[in-house]
Amino acid sequence: MKHFTTLTDTYNFNNLLQLATFYKNNPFIDNHLGKHKRLGLIFLNPSLRTRLSTQIAASNLGMETIILNIDKDSWALEFNDHVIMNGSKVEHIKEAAPILGNYFDILGIRSFPNLQNRAEDENELVLNSFLKYTKIPIISLESACLHPLQALADALTIKETLLHQKPLYSNKKPKVVLTWAPHIKPIPHCVANSFAQCMELEPDYNFVITNPQGFNLSKKITKNVHITHHQHEALENADFVYVKNWSAYEDYGKFSTDSSWLLNSDKLKITANAHVMHCLPVRRQVEIADEVLDSDKCLVQEQAKNRVWVAQAVIATLLKNSISCN
Amino acid sequence: MKHFTTLTDTYNFNNLLQLATFYKNNPFIDNHLGKHKRLGLIFLNPSLRTRLSTQIAASNLGMETIILNIDKDSWALEFNDHVIMNGSKVEHIKEAAPILGNYFDILGIRSFPNLQNRAEDENELVLNSFLKYTKIPIISLESACLHPLQALADALTIKETLLHQKPLYSNKKPKVVLTWAPHIKPIPHCVANSFAQCMELEPDYNFVITNPQGFNLSKKITKNVHITHHQHEALENADFVYVKNWSAYEDYGKFSTDSSWLLNSDKLKITANAHVMHCLPVRRQVEIADEVLDSDKCLVQEQAKNRVWVAQAVIATLLKNSISCN
Amino acid sequence: MKHFTTLTDTYNFNNLLQLATFYKNNPFIDNHLGKHKRLGLIFLNPSLRTRLSTQIAASNLGMETIILNIDKDSWALEFNDHVIMNGSKVEHIKEAAPILGNYFDILGIRSFPNLQNRAEDENELVLNSFLKYTKIPIISLESACLHPLQALADALTIKETLLHQKPLYSNKKPKVVLTWAPHIKPIPHCVANSFAQCMELEPDYNFVITNPQGFNLSKKITKNVHITHHQHEALENADFVYVKNWSAYEDYGKFSTDSSWLLNSDKLKITANAHVMHCLPVRRQVEIADEVLDSDKCLVQEQAKNRVWVAQAVIATLLKNSISCN
Repeated sequence: MKHFTTLTDTYNFNNLLQLATFYKNNPFIDNHLGKHKRLGLIFLNPSLRTRLSTQIAASNLGMETIILNIDKDSWALEFNDHVIMNGSKVEHIKEAAPILGNYFDILGIRSFPNLQNRAEDENELVLNSFLKYTKIPIISLESACLHPLQALADALTIKETLLHQKPLYSNKKPKVVLTWAPHIKPIPHCVANSFAQCMELEPDYNFVITNPQGFNLSKKITKNVHITHHQHEALENADFVYVKNWSAYEDYGKFSTDSSWLLNSDKLKITANAHVMHCLPVRRQVEIADEVLDSDKCLVQEQAKNRVWVAQAVIATLLKNSISCN
Repeated sequence: MKHFTTLTDTYNFNNLLQLATFYKNNPFIDNHLGKHKRLGLIFLNPSLRTRLSTQIAASNLGMETIILNIDKDSWALEFNDHVIMNGSKVEHIKEAAPILGNYFDILGIRSFPNLQNRAEDENELVLNSFLKYTKIPIISLESACLHPLQALADALTIKETLLHQKPLYSNKKPKVVLTWAPHIKPIPHCVANSFAQCMELEPDYNFVITNPQGFNLSKKITKNVHITHHQHEALENADFVYVKNWSAYEDYGKFSTDSSWLLNSDKLKITANAHVMHCLPVRRQVEIADEVLDSDKCLVQEQAKNRVWVAQAVIATLLKNSISCN
Repeated sequence: MKHFTTLTDTYNFNNLLQLATFYKNNPFIDNHLGKHKRLGLIFLNPSLRTRLSTQIAASNLGMETIILNIDKDSWALEFNDHVIMNGSKVEHIKEAAPILGNYFDILGIRSFPNLQNRAEDENELVLNSFLKYTKIPIISLESACLHPLQALADALTIKETLLHQKPLYSNKKPKVVLTWAPHIKPIPHCVANSFAQCMELEPDYNFVITNPQGFNLSKKITKNVHITHHQHEALENADFVYVKNWSAYEDYGKFSTDSSWLLNSDKLKITANAHVMHCLPVRRQVEIADEVLDSDKCLVQEQAKNRVWVAQAVIATLLKNSISCN
């Protein structure tokens, strides 16, 4: 594992989760690993949980973090080649990236999609430019299309919950449902995409996606996953219900406020007493009803806590690899 | 002491001041206390001295600080229950607070009043919501109505000054005057409120408040303190003059630029060669005349320096308590 | 050396470069020097390389850095005496500076010129006010007229390059050319000024400046340096070409987009296979052509890397001096 930008990388996914569990029980055990190492976190978009959890993870490893909260406008980078830079862009990625690669040992980057031009977003220009011009390990803190750190935390939360309740689930494959939820504005596909990729790596889960017509995720992501437009059908016998809004992929960036997709306690009755997940921030009474978020079946705090431990596992793995390469 | 949000808490006020003095002479003596502990500082309003002094205090204790400079607009939190969150608020305090409580060991919060709705401000919705939903010690970095860290630093500064000049004051109770000053815009009551509460805890001081008619502080704060609308009368024989503007409490949020209340050197002649205090930032020639701020009777720098040591005493006390509770 | 604000200070310039080289080879050797010491970095203007390199330099010395990203507008300081502060300025430098001097052991300050009033800019009001009212060592992170940290990094980069290629240069004085480049807006003189001052301290270099008519730097800076308006003449036989835009000094703040001054590969043919330098950020195809920036004669990354080591040498020298003074 040289970088951590997607869950289809060739590293061992379950090793990362095991390492995360290990750190959860022993936060400071590898406190020497990051000594005199620096993590740069570049935020081209705002962040709360991702920034905090990653910074805490690095600190647990004895690694120093320096944050660059860079508004896309204030440090406008040029990503295209052979441009006469007489406009608003003040620096080319070809100059900016290498020096960040020199100042830091690992670089985390967050850069959201614009949701206006699908090809442009799928091109992952920002992330790929940093990968191309920075010669150090890169961690995606959420890119235009993916959010692998979130998916790792989600996977860990499901595993922990299953372990806790082993007798209940031991005789059948747990059914995990990713259900679309309404929202008041266009939201990226990143969390949904990475969660789907993550579940596809889990042969022991029965994974289903449900969303309104016109809101299917990219076929490149969902592949052969069963998709239904009938939320009721999907929720039947579900053990985990992951609620998440995303804007349309086909009619790119279109959004819907259709409140019939709100997850409430009535719908949960169809499930097998399912646990409910969401990556946060969640809009109460729009995506999920109050009574669901306030119930003890709600795992959102567990997911958020686990962000620290999976980030720590990712950083530690990158640090170990870079040491063994030297 | 589980939290530090007001000076009427039941802890021993003078113990905190003694601990502050101890740390002033031995800044790094408890550098082990904060090892692997994290302080989150959440600023919903801007800060200079409070942020720096608190961060330095934590660092002296070996504790890591992570700052969240969160514009009220950019991370608009919903504080009311059962709301359909289809407006500008992106996250509910019920989700936001617990995870901060998990990421940090102590949380400091700054949230100013709006000075438009008295009941709302006195309700301390932001501070109380964090107290309710975060299960860790909370430090107020200035709330809607109070600024207890400032008051502690002010009390320490007065004590130190008295100790320095013992013979002068030994035969009478020191007279401490809180005098209203003009300002060009509505200013919160926090500093004045907490200073008044603080002085009420000091039986050995003769404490007087003076302000124009219509500018009395809340009766809940001033209780039986002598209030006069004649600044001249208040300043007579004063040993300490604390200058501070606040907007009206009765006609809530009204302000006054009445320059007859400016503290200048002529007025100081009425006092017993008084020391002059202000929490900073101060508007020169509006609140206090240049010659007063530039004189050696001015204690504003001492007050600002002491912010570090009282914050260190507060953080250390909370750390010790949380350790002894485990 | 009590402060580091200009290269005409009386300290030994070459000692600093030697110390920088030493730290480049032994980054953490003086990690004890900054223990329990704090560096405050005050940015009244944005910064990327300067902030990161200075923070990393301090960290290498075991020193804690606290950043104050202060927009000139949001923390509007009054610098003039005897003003009635009833306008937009919220705090006077006479109050703000001493407390920063108490909270920190060294203070770095960045404050750009407005390029509208030459006398005002040359007065260096911000930097000089901090020097006057803060009783601790001050480092300029780029002031209205000078950028000495950049010049030190530039000097180190030239020295390293010469050392690397000793046989080539041993028989003649290396020719170093500072050439003006076009730009789309008014740019400060700081980098050009400090580079010129720096080269004047190097008796073994043949230093030449070339710029269009009307764009001569201040005579106080350039003194007896040879200035030509014929770029071609300057580039002949050059070993180093430092490309930099600056606005007019005479017709103060005027700028020019004259693309005939762009440095391209054709012009480099006139040189002695010169190395090309720029402080970054650089506007590609406006100041320097792509093929030049992408060639192996381009030293811009080396310059940026060296920012860390010269900053570390400066901070270490100030720390050592302040210790020996106690």
